[in-house]
Amino acid sequence: MAQALARGVLRLERPVYAAGYAAVAGKKEGQGPMGKCFDRVEEDSHFGQETWEQAESRMQQETIYLAMQKAGTKPEDTDLILAGDLINQCTSSTYSLRPFGIPFLGLFGACSTMAEGLAIGSLLLENGAGRRAAAATSSHFSTAERQFRYPLSYGGQRPPSAQWTCTASGAVVLDRETTDAPRIRGVCIGKITDLGVCDANNMGAAMAPAAADTLTRWFQGTGTTPAEYDAIVTGDLGEIGGKLLLDLVMKQGYEIHPKYHDCGVLMFDGDRQDTHAGGSGCGCGGSLLCGHFLPRVKSGEIRRMLFMATGALMSPMLIQQGESIPGIAHLIEIVCGEE
Amino acid sequence: MAQALARGVLRLERPVYAAGYAAVAGKKEGQGPMGKCFDRVEEDSHFGQETWEQAESRMQQETIYLAMQKAGTKPEDTDLILAGDLINQCTSSTYSLRPFGIPFLGLFGACSTMAEGLAIGSLLLENGAGRRAAAATSSHFSTAERQFRYPLSYGGQRPPSAQWTCTASGAVVLDRETTDAPRIRGVCIGKITDLGVCDANNMGAAMAPAAADTLTRWFQGTGTTPAEYDAIVTGDLGEIGGKLLLDLVMKQGYEIHPKYHDCGVLMFDGDRQDTHAGGSGCGCGGSLLCGHFLPRVKSGEIRRMLFMATGALMSPMLIQQGESIPGIAHLIEIVCGEE
Repeated sequence: MAQALARGVLRLERPVYAAGYAAVAGKKEGQGPMGKCFDRVEEDSHFGQETWEQAESRMQQETIYLAMQKAGTKPEDTDLILAGDLINQCTSSTYSLRPFGIPFLGLFGACSTMAEGLAIGSLLLENGAGRRAAAATSSHFSTAERQFRYPLSYGGQRPPSAQWTCTASGAVVLDRETTDAPRIRGVCIGKITDLGVCDANNMGAAMAPAAADTLTRWFQGTGTTPAEYDAIVTGDLGEIGGKLLLDLVMKQGYEIHPKYHDCGVLMFDGDRQDTHAGGSGCGCGGSLLCGHFLPRVKSGEIRRMLFMATGALMSPMLIQQGESIPGIAHLIEIVCGEE
Repeated sequence: MAQALARGVLRLERPVYAAGYAAVAGKKEGQGPMGKCFDRVEEDSHFGQETWEQAESRMQQETIYLAMQKAGTKPEDTDLILAGDLINQCTSSTYSLRPFGIPFLGLFGACSTMAEGLAIGSLLLENGAGRRAAAATSSHFSTAERQFRYPLSYGGQRPPSAQWTCTASGAVVLDRETTDAPRIRGVCIGKITDLGVCDANNMGAAMAPAAADTLTRWFQGTGTTPAEYDAIVTGDLGEIGGKLLLDLVMKQGYEIHPKYHDCGVLMFDGDRQDTHAGGSGCGCGGSLLCGHFLPRVKSGEIRRMLFMATGALMSPMLIQQGESIPGIAHLIEIVCGEE
């Protein structure tokens, strides 16, 4: 049974491990500074499919298969899968998972989905829902841009605050019995936070207050300080949102700067790759968690980290109606092995 | 800790109660045969708001407040809320919940959301995530029809297999400590099931195979028979889907007919109200669970029931791309008091 340290701040008492994890990314992501960390980089952004939506589903499906392979398991031995993505009706996940036949819980957390899936999956496994649960997510530049902003062929000008939706996917197989693998030890469930940002080209600013709220509640609930972690990682705040987060938590007395990384900033070389404020999308944090950070926890290079995936719960229709963009951020504490 | 009887078939060992529940519905639903069961029927389908999307959010928000009031609690004493709906990016839920400040887990399960939220919420509470969790959902005729089918003012002809998206919302406050209330005792997590139905005007046929799979797995996993339940209730299979479900489970050896009710069939007087195959939408099953069935479990009239909310994971874009409609169904076992 988990221990509730504060509202939404939970510590797992029974171990749940990340037994296998995989990351697949597109060509542009493969050409970025993190290109070598992915299990696979696909040169064809259609992933062999006819439509962008089918391409994203295929990418997510391949990522899940790879994660299962690396965990030494199969769909029929997985008790539960949690997934979601950015596309309306979460089709990248539902069509990806259709052939698997695994009990499925569909999530919508926008770019916070990787952490949301790991949080719920870990807690359900701790509660006996089975031995293994998988969590997966994905994003694709070509499905997201046309849905949220402009038709691709319109060639709209991107302001400097815009982020580049990554074509990438991450999947983790959680296992209650494996040892010698990164362990999920804590969870902080995010609150919807909205300080009134209405600009669909400034997602970082819309998400930063939610990230600050979650991180502050985690430090307060657990009584820990930033110094106790080797890495504090956000999903896709980008250059602008990341700086806002540093400022906001500093005002609460937490100096996270020396430990801080944002997957959106890590993903691209902005000047060379023309990606402005950085990468974004569910697959941005998801793929770098699985491709870059979890292997470093496994090797012991990182002993204790916080992964906080941030989501802008943005609706083009509600923005047209004059609404602002609510943000959310879910946090996972990951530690090395049994520690 | 829950007991896993089979993959995705879970029995809760610690009690979790439905301490408060509420249902709010629109004018047409109020004029139907179930009109008297709702806590509130709103004559103004705009719910005092300017847009349909804002109207649905407001309806859901009122329903959650009412459920909390009836459970004798407040947002600040609720540890967790799980919600989702049909609208892109689940805005009816995210904007509804924005002022609450409750740790939030966003779901996408289409019309299966009420059962998905109750399933995850119950299991997380059992695992110590807090004392109280709320689960909520909603649908609105005017937000759903224009998103999934035709613009409202187009006045498209509806085929006989079409269902009528209900303007309705349901919310439940789960509580680990209350007694003398309906108790969640079991959960069956659905699998994505797709037998190739491509017709957005025949949701019942798309969802029935998923419902049959879930119900059969429940009976097999628990070793129970239909005769042991006072009511077996589906969310919104409607006339066509309901008949398919009866046939499909009969082929597996389960005769559920005498105990079977579908909220989509119950909601309207089809001949008088011109609703063809019945009601649909997240709020259809959600509102009748909260307005009609849970009060009957509380009074002891129903001692043991299964509530299975069914979802058509339908995307207008993927249908345009020639895809079929995947279905899913999550099941909850609800029993009277301590039994």
